[in-house]
Amino acid sequence: MLPFSRISIIGLGLIGSSIARAVRAHMPTVGITGYDADPAVRERAAELGIADDVTDTPGAAVTDADMVMLCVPVGAMREAGEAIAADLADGVVVSDVGSVKGSILDDLRAVLPPGVAIVPGHPVAGTENSGPDAGFAQLFHNRWCILTPDERTEAFAVERLSAFWSRLGANVEVMDPKHHDLVLAVTSHLPHLIAYTIVGTASDMESVTRSEVIKYSAGGFRDFTRIAASDPTMWRDVFLANKEAVLEMLQRFTEDMTALQRAIRWDDGDALFNLFSRTRAIRRSIIDQGQDDARPDFGRAHD
Amino acid sequence: MLPFSRISIIGLGLIGSSIARAVRAHMPTVGITGYDADPAVRERAAELGIADDVTDTPGAAVTDADMVMLCVPVGAMREAGEAIAADLADGVVVSDVGSVKGSILDDLRAVLPPGVAIVPGHPVAGTENSGPDAGFAQLFHNRWCILTPDERTEAFAVERLSAFWSRLGANVEVMDPKHHDLVLAVTSHLPHLIAYTIVGTASDMESVTRSEVIKYSAGGFRDFTRIAASDPTMWRDVFLANKEAVLEMLQRFTEDMTALQRAIRWDDGDALFNLFSRTRAIRRSIIDQGQDDARPDFGRAHD
Ligand SMILES: NC(=O)c1ccc[n+]([C@@H]2O[C@H](COP(=O)([O-])OP(=O)(O)OC[C@H]3O[C@@H](n4cnc5c(N)ncnc54)[C@H](OP(=O)(O)O)[C@@H]3O)[C@@H](O)[C@H]2O)c1
Ligand SMILES: NC(=O)c1ccc[n+]([C@@H]2O[C@H](COP(=O)([O-])OP(=O)(O)OC[C@H]3O[C@@H](n4cnc5c(N)ncnc54)[C@H](OP(=O)(O)O)[C@@H]3O)[C@@H](O)[C@H]2O)c1
Repeated sequence: MLPFSRISIIGLGLIGSSIARAVRAHMPTVGITGYDADPAVRERAAELGIADDVTDTPGAAVTDADMVMLCVPVGAMREAGEAIAADLADGVVVSDVGSVKGSILDDLRAVLPPGVAIVPGHPVAGTENSGPDAGFAQLFHNRWCILTPDERTEAFAVERLSAFWSRLGANVEVMDPKHHDLVLAVTSHLPHLIAYTIVGTASDMESVTRSEVIKYSAGGFRDFTRIAASDPTMWRDVFLANKEAVLEMLQRFTEDMTALQRAIRWDDGDALFNLFSRTRAIRRSIIDQGQDDARPDFGRAHD
Repeated sequence: MLPFSRISIIGLGLIGSSIARAVRAHMPTVGITGYDADPAVRERAAELGIADDVTDTPGAAVTDADMVMLCVPVGAMREAGEAIAADLADGVVVSDVGSVKGSILDDLRAVLPPGVAIVPGHPVAGTENSGPDAGFAQLFHNRWCILTPDERTEAFAVERLSAFWSRLGANVEVMDPKHHDLVLAVTSHLPHLIAYTIVGTASDMESVTRSEVIKYSAGGFRDFTRIAASDPTMWRDVFLANKEAVLEMLQRFTEDMTALQRAIRWDDGDALFNLFSRTRAIRRSIIDQGQDDARPDFGRAHD
């Protein structure tokens, strides 16, 4: 049995359009309506045919839906919830894909009517690109999707949403929102913060020109530029919404960096060698568990 | 005309074996001899047939060569030079591929006989893997190779080495060794240092398990694990040999990180947004100049 028969997607960018495409691919009989605040995105989404109907108002997109997925930046979730509240069908399941889970459940409960089952979620999958053209149906294959309900959340809604994400090829995990935010601070938010920083540092150097940075980026730097090319609005919202956990992780990172700095300053080759040997094991596990491409250099083309 | 007719490669790992394969592919009539300190590597290199002859002593590998390329870790360069000194032919060109250029010219001049032309070099290309099986002929295609001769270096030798790297598909640049070390500190050494650090930080967390770090690594963390899986000996040597420039760049990075930390702490969304918007341009240039894969996610497979 299909978990839902008519879904509505609010926000038709990378994640929203990928969900639409994945539903088409894996549950072709499910009806899809969509809405985006940006008229150009609506037009493009309609052109691409990723939904049966792209509506001009948020309300019109949700009236018939038995599941609504909010795919807007974290800072716009509450507003997006408010905009659909009056038009939701009774018994509808509302979920989201925001990268921070903290208070989203409370925020949505505050703006949505009582008959609505709310199950916050976060598919840990993405690319550096944004917008409806960047999406693709396989984005969630073998990736994890974390759901963060609480004890008040209706069990049926959690089950259906799990089934939904499984159908799209994802593995589903249920987690406490606070713990989600701590885990993602390490595996996603801190890496982005560091990448944005080093790309900024390299651009601002006077002794090394920007053209040199670009020419010799294959030495390692280019790896960081990918995630530092991610959407500024999305990431501003993530750091503001997950401030506490991000600052805590940053503190840890800075301490470790200081230790390494000391090792370099005092020519402690053994300390360097030991750390550099330890860090290999994690990559091996990531590849063994299918969370990265096993080919060297991420499978980059060499021709 | 071919720049060299019989080359010798000392150190048959990733870079040495890639040079051998690239010479076979692009200059098939050139003779190749090779030597490696590790008997297992010698055996494997012979099995792979990447050289015409893999010898059991460094001296035997160089006697007939008109060019010798040292492809050993930075800390082993001097020793590798010493080991071949007595057997070099008169007029031979000796080069290397070490990732730090600092004092290599002086070091090699100190151990090699006067009739030898020394041209230090560094191909800015690699993968996270090591050893003779990891090499491939296309590694240097459209990558930059930096040569760092000084005013005493014979012009003919620089020209021949430039021609050699061009034949392997590389773009060649001549640079002052001090400047090379500063540029590479930004584009390669600091990125590796940061990647090693964050992978270490994530492994040592108590509040987040290692299994969680692995499962949710697709949020960004996995990008860092690739370079943090690079060879520990090579990287220990790089940091010890390029201490000054690395510490200077690390200082810059830490300052920028502190500014970003403040912006998060004080909810300064505009400062975050501005930095995150600036950093996109560099990736675009890197892709425009063919220094990274233009496909999203480095072209990783999604299936
Ligand atoms: N990108 C990733 O890797 C990734 C991974 C996992 C989860 N996420 C989460 O997924 C969500 C969407 O990210 P994305 O990458 O898909 O972003 P995206 O490609 O920029 O798409 C977001 C779309 O939502 C629209 N929007 C903004 N406010 C809206 C509102 N109130 N009502 C309707 N539409 C609105 C935006 O229009 P405007 O451009 O006009 O604002 C934009 O078209 C974010 O919460 C993000 O944290 C992202
Ligand atoms: N990897 C990269 O991305 C990259 C890029 C550009 C430049 N480089 C530079 O290229 C050089 C080689 O790196 P690689 O990645 O090719 O390393 P690799 O795959 O580990 O190969 C190096 C080989 O040299 C051998 N060796 C060590 N000392 C020797 C000696 N005195 N005489 C003969 N052989 C010796 C090693 O044997 P043992 O294992 O027994 O020590 C090993 O088989 C380094 O200087 C590095 O800085 C590397």
